Amino acid sequence: MRTDLCDRLGIEHPIVGFTPSEHVAAAISRAGGLGVLGAVRYNDPDELAAALDWLDKNTDGRPYGVDVVMPMKAPTEGSIGDLSKLVPPAHRDFVEKTLHELGVPPLPASDNPDGDGVLGWLHSVARAHVEIALEHRPALIANALGSPPADVIAQAHDRGILVAALAGRVDHALRQVADGVDIVVAQGSEAGGHTGEIGSMVLLPEIVDAVGGSVPVLGAGGIGSGRQLVAALALGASGVWMGSTWLLTEEYANGLGQTAVSQALLKASSADTVRARIYSGKMARLVKSRWTEAWAAPDAPDPLPMPLQNLLVGEAHRRIAAADDPDVVAMPAGQIIGRFDHLQPVATIIEDIVREAEATRARLAP
Amino acid sequence: MRTDLCDRLGIEHPIVGFTPSEHVAAAISRAGGLGVLGAVRYNDPDELAAALDWLDKNTDGRPYGVDVVMPMKAPTEGSIGDLSKLVPPAHRDFVEKTLHELGVPPLPASDNPDGDGVLGWLHSVARAHVEIALEHRPALIANALGSPPADVIAQAHDRGILVAALAGRVDHALRQVADGVDIVVAQGSEAGGHTGEIGSMVLLPEIVDAVGGSVPVLGAGGIGSGRQLVAALALGASGVWMGSTWLLTEEYANGLGQTAVSQALLKASSADTVRARIYSGKMARLVKSRWTEAWAAPDAPDPLPMPLQNLLVGEAHRRIAAADDPDVVAMPAGQIIGRFDHLQPVATIIEDIVREAEATRARLAP
Repeated sequence: MRTDLCDRLGIEHPIVGFTPSEHVAAAISRAGGLGVLGAVRYNDPDELAAALDWLDKNTDGRPYGVDVVMPMKAPTEGSIGDLSKLVPPAHRDFVEKTLHELGVPPLPASDNPDGDGVLGWLHSVARAHVEIALEHRPALIANALGSPPADVIAQAHDRGILVAALAGRVDHALRQVADGVDIVVAQGSEAGGHTGEIGSMVLLPEIVDAVGGSVPVLGAGGIGSGRQLVAALALGASGVWMGSTWLLTEEYANGLGQTAVSQALLKASSADTVRARIYSGKMARLVKSRWTEAWAAPDAPDPLPMPLQNLLVGEAHRRIAAADDPDVVAMPAGQIIGRFDHLQPVATIIEDIVREAEATRARLAP
Repeated sequence: MRTDLCDRLGIEHPIVGFTPSEHVAAAISRAGGLGVLGAVRYNDPDELAAALDWLDKNTDGRPYGVDVVMPMKAPTEGSIGDLSKLVPPAHRDFVEKTLHELGVPPLPASDNPDGDGVLGWLHSVARAHVEIALEHRPALIANALGSPPADVIAQAHDRGILVAALAGRVDHALRQVADGVDIVVAQGSEAGGHTGEIGSMVLLPEIVDAVGGSVPVLGAGGIGSGRQLVAALALGASGVWMGSTWLLTEEYANGLGQTAVSQALLKASSADTVRARIYSGKMARLVKSRWTEAWAAPDAPDPLPMPLQNLLVGEAHRRIAAADDPDVVAMPAGQIIGRFDHLQPVATIIEDIVREAEATRARLAP
């Protein structure tokens, strides 16, 4: 099951796993994949540094990666206070009214150190994340928003770190390779979080045909089993990028301690996700809940552009997390969540994928 | 490349091709697949009978199929005149204004034999289609709307005809198999025409796991190459159902004589389709054009439910077809259309798929 990707990254199985949990990332790397820690939730760069220090010590010397959310060009960006003034009061009223109707209480005053959302969406914070990452030993820096700035790519390459970017269209992939990106993640519409409209079955071979001669391409969006891994390889991928699957692991559930998210994801079918701009201002796939339904109602306002939408809903997300109600969650998740009905250890999932993939290759053999 | 499906249907390659053109259907069957003729466009059942007579004589004795659009239960259905009264005048005004703005002229009076859309959406007409089909020798009757009525399934089985149904969700597939359907077509969101929200990468293995032990499952949505055929087989399918690919064939372009549709599809990328209710009242994927954009504008009305929407836009579709403008087309098409940039003969496409599939199997072999 080894591919060229395994040699490039020094891993055993062609499985790259994105996760916001350092515990999950470490478990993926220890099991022979590449765990990639999402940096966006670390408002304080020191916390990211601590998480990467921990990863350095808990991955048995195996490689890991870091995922940032960074536009190629720095947007005009005021202080948080300036930006907050751009959020219309009617939007704030809608959020407050909705949370009240959904029975989500306010946070205790002591529990609200920064009331302004996930700052990782801000370019300045993403920059700090990159600097922290460069001080550690990741094998890969991935960017959810396409090519990182040129100097970031250059600094990564100087340190022998590969750069990956997520692409939802062929033209994005072509630009990324021209910018010096080393690995393109072809992310189909099935994926959780920021995602485009083109399904993996169509997107992956298109991107392979466009850039596969230059760089390895990973299949992302809808991957959670060995059959899906082999399907991605059949379509020309060198491996897979998986995200939502890890939300259904014991390490994730134990690490973040949110039972409501696990319950919501376990009971969801593949039909229970929705693409909307309500999470960050950019189109992202989330698990359906009373929160996403409220934003789809006729009286709901249009979401604001990034980064304003996250400033609008950042505190709401924390209130929803604290309320821990499985019917009211704000959680990016892809259609693959329908496959899982109980939590498993990360290592078991990877073992099952590898075993099923080998059986599938044998079944397809001429 | 043979699978159990080939034995069930008496075909050489596990490729089933849906098409509104009897010329394309015959070419698919002659090339070793199963050509399936879409009946919905035949307002006059005698025309369908003539097309099936022609197929009987032009398929070299090889099997073919017929596709109808028939709900399991007959809806309350008045005469065309009664139904037309349910179309709001504001909707008619929007269509007329839009056609005017897009430069689509009225039809000549002599060219307008029936002003009420595609009648095949009506249950009574679909019934007539089934009766015509049963008088011929199709190997398969497929239904785009799920299980056909029980007596249709029974009559087909009495004549040794297999029944297939399209499913966009696992619960639909389970119901179809319980109803006696012989082949389930798992149609991912990438597909053209009526389609759901779940991508092929996720939907296909889900449906295989749910009903694959009872019936063969075909992968549909985003299939147009040998790599995609092998990906579908990796996901557990017994074969593939392809539709949009045949719109980019010489037989289709020559048969229907609409150069605008061919031009529109050839220049479209995989990002140039849209899911909307504007074609039939049910969600369907179409190639983007100035017509679909007009319906997405803020001033556009909500589409009407089936069958009213088709009564509303039926004449508009004929006017658009007659105007033959590549920028103004009303055409169901899936994301796979981005793969093709020139017209090819049906036989060449099937040869290429089979050759690429064999190469892919060899590449994946353990």
